Amino acid sequence: MLNLSILTIGDEICIGQIINTNAAWIAAECTRISCKILAHSSIGDEMDVIVSEIGRLIAHSDALIITGGLGPTHDDITKEAISAFLGDTIVLHEPTLAYLKDFYTSRNRTLTERNATQALLPSLTQPLHNSRGTAPGMLFDYHGKLIVSLPGVPMEMKGIMTDHVLPLLAKRAAIGDVLLYKTLMTTGIPEASLADLIGEPSEFLHGASLAFLPSYQGVRLRIGVSGATKIAAEADIERIETHIRSKAAKFIFGEDNQSLTTVVTNLLLKKKLTVSVAESCTGGLLGAALTDLAGSSAYFEGGVQTYSYAAKEHILSVKHETLTIYGAVSSETVEEMAVNVRQKFSTDFGISISGIAGPGGGLPEKPVGTVWIGLAHPGGVITKRFNFGNDRTMNRERSVGAALEMLYRALIG
Amino acid sequence: MLNLSILTIGDEICIGQIINTNAAWIAAECTRISCKILAHSSIGDEMDVIVSEIGRLIAHSDALIITGGLGPTHDDITKEAISAFLGDTIVLHEPTLAYLKDFYTSRNRTLTERNATQALLPSLTQPLHNSRGTAPGMLFDYHGKLIVSLPGVPMEMKGIMTDHVLPLLAKRAAIGDVLLYKTLMTTGIPEASLADLIGEPSEFLHGASLAFLPSYQGVRLRIGVSGATKIAAEADIERIETHIRSKAAKFIFGEDNQSLTTVVTNLLLKKKLTVSVAESCTGGLLGAALTDLAGSSAYFEGGVQTYSYAAKEHILSVKHETLTIYGAVSSETVEEMAVNVRQKFSTDFGISISGIAGPGGGLPEKPVGTVWIGLAHPGGVITKRFNFGNDRTMNRERSVGAALEMLYRALIG
Repeated sequence: MLNLSILTIGDEICIGQIINTNAAWIAAECTRISCKILAHSSIGDEMDVIVSEIGRLIAHSDALIITGGLGPTHDDITKEAISAFLGDTIVLHEPTLAYLKDFYTSRNRTLTERNATQALLPSLTQPLHNSRGTAPGMLFDYHGKLIVSLPGVPMEMKGIMTDHVLPLLAKRAAIGDVLLYKTLMTTGIPEASLADLIGEPSEFLHGASLAFLPSYQGVRLRIGVSGATKIAAEADIERIETHIRSKAAKFIFGEDNQSLTTVVTNLLLKKKLTVSVAESCTGGLLGAALTDLAGSSAYFEGGVQTYSYAAKEHILSVKHETLTIYGAVSSETVEEMAVNVRQKFSTDFGISISGIAGPGGGLPEKPVGTVWIGLAHPGGVITKRFNFGNDRTMNRERSVGAALEMLYRALIG
Repeated sequence: MLNLSILTIGDEICIGQIINTNAAWIAAECTRISCKILAHSSIGDEMDVIVSEIGRLIAHSDALIITGGLGPTHDDITKEAISAFLGDTIVLHEPTLAYLKDFYTSRNRTLTERNATQALLPSLTQPLHNSRGTAPGMLFDYHGKLIVSLPGVPMEMKGIMTDHVLPLLAKRAAIGDVLLYKTLMTTGIPEASLADLIGEPSEFLHGASLAFLPSYQGVRLRIGVSGATKIAAEADIERIETHIRSKAAKFIFGEDNQSLTTVVTNLLLKKKLTVSVAESCTGGLLGAALTDLAGSSAYFEGGVQTYSYAAKEHILSVKHETLTIYGAVSSETVEEMAVNVRQKFSTDFGISISGIAGPGGGLPEKPVGTVWIGLAHPGGVITKRFNFGNDRTMNRERSVGAALEMLYRALIG
């Protein structure tokens, strides 16, 4: 086990202009290799704050991963801050300069003076090659502890982590106690009901941890265990998992990082079945989810985003009377949408979504959050009404989750 | 001005299982009302760690906002931690219990013993009504400083922030120095070129800050200023903005939180123009972006997700020869897709995207990241080739950004 902290530097994170996806990615990857994440900290571009935060975090961690502030503009001061913390000086690193020259030449661009500053590095660093960009990562040994500094651009950060940092951390984390997590993914049951179903944690956890994590696609149950050996920890996880499955098996659709999308697309691939979509209020989100993973052309044929009445009628041949009598948000309309899209694209399944995402458009009998979903399959068609809430984004995301769950239930029979 | 820190509690954030969107939202909202965000910190569900982190953060802040750990399950310990920090005790809060009974009764559910625990609150708290859920927010006065504790569920957190916390913070932040930010949104120019174009920051900033924030939709330029009065700060912002606009006007498409999507949809609304989409590798992401905002039915008619060759040919009438001679990822194919979808949906614009998102499917002359985008408009059709990179998610997102930019350029003439 290795105690690790994450420091993200940049006013843009601090003032909330961008969401800190880097910290989550680093934490997830490092957790997987048995690091214990102590804290994420995000601070702005202020020299003295950065220097003291590096000192505070490394004092109680075995390793510190820093991202951000390595760009070529004046607001990027991480190199200077680390250098100040270590009492180091910044020098020209010739191999990095050579790489930069080559990087720009091969792209028919010239290396400007500004971009060449990326070859100026603290003298104590071991540079980490950045195959996807120009700012190298930096590795420092600090009294036997590790300090790593990476660019804030997610693609570049991930490349350097994968190529250099994770292998190094994995080697160190393999020493001492082992920390393991396993997550069971559930759908179709609220958090509190799931907790009651599983029973009093103290009676089966015995020192392990169990967390309930609600999301649009269901509640995730995360088991956490630390043990003297990997075998002991795995046995402990298995014991707790068996208990949970004995209580809540029918709600569990997957494990660990498997989203409902992944489970559904794997089932489609395995059964060699295809799907098409007809989307109204989601505008393309369901198709986007189904094509999120590489290889989706094997099961996703396509779809139609029939946002208007006219599009539903003329593109998808929903009957004019159906729309005028029952409305666009109705069992009758999503039934025709699902059946027609399935036929049009010659797929095994056709899924349709039509709802009132809000904030406007609600009616007394169909308030904002009312969503109808249709699923046409080789044996017929089913439709289902959902009542989500008042938030447009949430209504669109939960619609996708509910459509995927209907397809999942159909796929597992 | 008010110095504010944000603490997110929960193993799920700490180990990277979910992304910390709450901290970004809180930071952005509080920045808007002239709070200075000092730090975000995320830690796990450990009592002693939470207690000491509350103490550390409030020591150098005027206000501390805590989210997470208020749920009904055993891993939720924020109430106990705050209570321990303050030396307080937890008691039954009768009005909250009455609200909970009503909440469940009105939804035809019974209030379980577990859910009733949400009415147990530290005695020193002023409860903040949660109109979207069951866990109330909590407000504490700590030697004249504010400690606020909110549920981790984003919808509920946002509701309590908007209803109670932001008005309170705004009142306090209005005292003393004013802190203002303004962001200029650019597109079509890389970060380093933009920095060179604008010139040496020390020559025009004079104590203000300027940050360069690259993203898929372009580089954002954020000006930050603090002044004795709002008028002085605004004048300073205007002075710097004028300088930047004099250098880089043609790359600036919007201000502050205006995404390219917002600017484009506002232009469509203003000009009463409509759009339809034909998506291949993006699978629905462009339609999803165009329907992200309420009121999108005024300009978005619909679209087709023609993922397969067959769908392009049969649903969108792309000529068989076009596909066999030039391939699906070609100028010729996206031209037909754009023209045909525009005609099919009777819209002013038709946008098409076809590309190799990866990781598979690359060819020597069309490597992964090759994307063709077509834009049919009343006067004809244009197509453009893009070469993004190796990452599937990035290629799909940058395709949407590039399509929006083409539409934007067409809309501003």
